[in-house]
Amino acid sequence: MTPAYSPGLEGVIAGETSVSSVDESLRYRGYAIEDLAEHCSYEEVAYLLLYGELPNAKRLADFTARVNAARRLTQPLRDLLKSLPKWTHPLDALRSSVSVLSHFDQDVSDNSTDANLRKAERLIAQLPVAIADYFRYCKGLQPVAASQELNNAANFLYMIRGEKPTPEDTKAFDVSLILYADHEFNASTFTARTIVSTQSDLHSGVVGAIGALKGPLHGGANEKVVGVLDEIGSPANAEKWVMDALARKERIMGFGHRVCKKGDVRAGICKKYASQAAARAGTTHYEVTADIVERLMAEQKKMFPNVDWPAGRLYHALGLEIPIYTPIFAAARVAGWSAHVIEQMENNRLIRPRGLYKGPADRVVPPIAERA
Amino acid sequence: MTPAYSPGLEGVIAGETSVSSVDESLRYRGYAIEDLAEHCSYEEVAYLLLYGELPNAKRLADFTARVNAARRLTQPLRDLLKSLPKWTHPLDALRSSVSVLSHFDQDVSDNSTDANLRKAERLIAQLPVAIADYFRYCKGLQPVAASQELNNAANFLYMIRGEKPTPEDTKAFDVSLILYADHEFNASTFTARTIVSTQSDLHSGVVGAIGALKGPLHGGANEKVVGVLDEIGSPANAEKWVMDALARKERIMGFGHRVCKKGDVRAGICKKYASQAAARAGTTHYEVTADIVERLMAEQKKMFPNVDWPAGRLYHALGLEIPIYTPIFAAARVAGWSAHVIEQMENNRLIRPRGLYKGPADRVVPPIAERA
Repeated sequence: MTPAYSPGLEGVIAGETSVSSVDESLRYRGYAIEDLAEHCSYEEVAYLLLYGELPNAKRLADFTARVNAARRLTQPLRDLLKSLPKWTHPLDALRSSVSVLSHFDQDVSDNSTDANLRKAERLIAQLPVAIADYFRYCKGLQPVAASQELNNAANFLYMIRGEKPTPEDTKAFDVSLILYADHEFNASTFTARTIVSTQSDLHSGVVGAIGALKGPLHGGANEKVVGVLDEIGSPANAEKWVMDALARKERIMGFGHRVCKKGDVRAGICKKYASQAAARAGTTHYEVTADIVERLMAEQKKMFPNVDWPAGRLYHALGLEIPIYTPIFAAARVAGWSAHVIEQMENNRLIRPRGLYKGPADRVVPPIAERA
Repeated sequence: MTPAYSPGLEGVIAGETSVSSVDESLRYRGYAIEDLAEHCSYEEVAYLLLYGELPNAKRLADFTARVNAARRLTQPLRDLLKSLPKWTHPLDALRSSVSVLSHFDQDVSDNSTDANLRKAERLIAQLPVAIADYFRYCKGLQPVAASQELNNAANFLYMIRGEKPTPEDTKAFDVSLILYADHEFNASTFTARTIVSTQSDLHSGVVGAIGALKGPLHGGANEKVVGVLDEIGSPANAEKWVMDALARKERIMGFGHRVCKKGDVRAGICKKYASQAAARAGTTHYEVTADIVERLMAEQKKMFPNVDWPAGRLYHALGLEIPIYTPIFAAARVAGWSAHVIEQMENNRLIRPRGLYKGPADRVVPPIAERA
């Protein structure tokens, strides 16, 4: 008997998790994402994802100190990043960076939860450094040494821009990291869980997850948003552009979600910060255009923006360049990936589904001289 | 309503495929694995997996020429491999190698089937070189330049050993590569398919697959086999060792398979070559011990050897060192991974299952001063 199947595993439960839940809202370990975005820093949220509970002041200070102290790359990785062709996508460079960092990780051959927590903390520190250093190499600029004092969000903006960000920019960026930190069994997280279900290791899981995040049907979407708005050009052109795109049955990046079909709560949270950042940057025409597109998509298609729609605009308003948007997503999501990897390894079952064979019927190898 | 689920997706159909089928037998595109192992070379099988049909003489010659010409690494990758800590597992080094090779691939940003076929052919050529070069760096030896004349199996043994292998060793190794070349929706292949289901790229899929292959519940098993036999020590000790291990409810690596519960056809094919190679190498005591273990596992547990059980012994008899056994598996499987990636991208649907939430109930963020 051939079991029925759901293409793309849509709606199929692939495992149990205590890390996050997605339904009307999004919750990390029971806390609503709105609550976390308003009251917590990315560091508190990363700690929550990894350790299961929000940190008290002492635990947060210790965690922050450990992460901040790990903000450096090994020299062979710096040499590699400098040697890459300048057209290398920063997300590809980040995938190689994490793979190479594993070789130099002091816990590389230890798969215990304690070791995995240490690895995860180091990756939270290292990914932003790898993104920023590679960004500056590509520009022919010297890397900016990481700060030991700034929080994760401020340090990243500082290492990219070379100057310390305002509290407003820092908060907006920090919120985007919180929103990106986890999302249940998305494709990259499920990739990481599948990889470690063979009893592989955390770095292998994260490396695979970065590869999955790259695609425009997942993290790659946030790099497409500004392109859509640039193509529309001005608010006056928005309605015609959307109606034409819909008539051609084109997918508009930043809208729709496999799971959040009635809308993505993260989009509403991020939109506020994107609007404020656009006002500070003098790019409010993007926001006006975006509003028109949102309204039309809801009216015409009952499709709603996902988090990438405002996040792409927020990063643009913060002066960040498009090719690092998906790497930023990865730098935030590494907390969630790590939490899922640890959960998978603590209660493991090999993830090995079946394929439904649709190929040629049984046949016999012909001698090579008789082949077409 | 919460749908029922099968832990580890056991028995769940995750997609359709024309690449291979696993039931009583194993078939690649309709051809039984016994038939392919007896009548074809790895090159013919790799071509079959990638292009869907066995090649005629002209197509095989062209394919072989393209693959052989691609047997080289880029200098930044050589520099990186030389700089790795000497305890770096060769499979981890291979994961980084493929990630780095992507940056220098001329088709890196092209996701068309034609480009993916070119990438796949290059990876079939490059993986053995990366394994052999890193192996020799670790030994403090100069790499051996790849041959342009030897076939894939012979060239690999040549690059590792520094001398050309006998026809018998070449055939035995070639058969092992054929047996490892594909196996339906195994964990690493499913990882690759999930990664590219986001519209990511072939290299990202293969990098993730290598990470999944690493685990001892998957490709890592073939590195454990010789350890089991060494621990048993001699045939006279085999029965006691197995019965003690079963009494302690220990997993014995090389036995059992999620899908092939009645036995793995590949094991029988490979066993013949392992025995012959052991006879040539004067290590038949491993084969005698293995036979006793096989008999006991069948009698006591109704568990049968999988392909890793004889493959580990074959590689040992061929004088290969244990840490490169799983990398060899990867170098063979890259043909299957690539075929599945191409198939997934040609008829894609995002692979995004759901998780079943089992974590804390809804709760409200407390002020940091009130946290435990």
